[in-house]
Amino acid sequence: MSTADRLIESTRELLWERGYVGTSPKAIQQRAGAGQGSMYHHFTGKPDLALAAIRRTAEEMCAKAEELLSAPGTAMDRVAAYLHRERDALKGCPIGRLTQDPDVMADPALRAPVDETLAWLRERLARVLEEGRERGELDAALDPRATAATIVATLQGAYVLARAAGSVRPFDQAITGVLGLLTAHVRPTE
Amino acid sequence: MSTADRLIESTRELLWERGYVGTSPKAIQQRAGAGQGSMYHHFTGKPDLALAAIRRTAEEMCAKAEELLSAPGTAMDRVAAYLHRERDALKGCPIGRLTQDPDVMADPALRAPVDETLAWLRERLARVLEEGRERGELDAALDPRATAATIVATLQGAYVLARAAGSVRPFDQAITGVLGLLTAHVRPTE
Repeated sequence: MSTADRLIESTRELLWERGYVGTSPKAIQQRAGAGQGSMYHHFTGKPDLALAAIRRTAEEMCAKAEELLSAPGTAMDRVAAYLHRERDALKGCPIGRLTQDPDVMADPALRAPVDETLAWLRERLARVLEEGRERGELDAALDPRATAATIVATLQGAYVLARAAGSVRPFDQAITGVLGLLTAHVRPTE
Repeated sequence: MSTADRLIESTRELLWERGYVGTSPKAIQQRAGAGQGSMYHHFTGKPDLALAAIRRTAEEMCAKAEELLSAPGTAMDRVAAYLHRERDALKGCPIGRLTQDPDVMADPALRAPVDETLAWLRERLARVLEEGRERGELDAALDPRATAATIVATLQGAYVLARAAGSVRPFDQAITGVLGLLTAHVRPTE
């Protein structure tokens, strides 16, 4: 891994473990095994590194979601696969969690990739549901856009419930519940 | 207001604005117009005050929810009233937000009221949905417990989406979506 990559990866880990305020340039350098000069050679400072780290996390998250949501199968299969994919429920979503980080939210440049990722997910899920309706898999009463927002919100909120409870149980319940509600819109195959 | 009450109210405001780490005993005293001696006369320290503050917020939140969920009307009416009640979507949920505060989550005494509040909400909503099923307002396919977890998760996640977007729009969409999904389970009245 290049020094720049090591610095980005270390920033990602520290953002995840300690949040933005709790992540010092010194700690990033130590974890990356890079000197101060090297860090400032590649990045203008902590905000610049944090932006690269958040963007990389966002790209990975969208790539994983895209893989599952563009797979073969019905709209319902794909949404279920996306909701059931392995997640570290107790740690929370690496993107969603940033919305509670006051310094990230206060900086428009850092908030942008958070906003874009969650907006992209809603949009992508809405397209899957829309396809399901067009193919006659889902009934016409289903509102693709609002339902997509509900799916993304359920996932983000499920992390909140799991962290509060110190248990994955309410996370799993919330996912089961939203899939149950969606199932009611699946049209019987002829 | 008594000094103890002023100290609790100031702690609530500061927790909301700055989080636990960002709230110093000094700042609490200044906002409450109370001296250090007075603060330590009433409370053993910041964790004790934070606990009183979180408990008061939790009690108010449960009381508001109970008022709407025990009102007359169908199960669906009551859930809709609860989801539509006025909320400051961009500020987030004063209880749910604490799950992203590492110091609150690391302290079992401070995490307990957060967990209890969200568990109580799930339980209370499950009872409303169960009643709706028993009265024949909702169809038997609806899983009250899982659906209740989905409703609480949608609300918590809707705050995440609103904060990321800097707009109430995705919050409103997620609420519209979950109510739309629930509506499919409302049985036609005879």
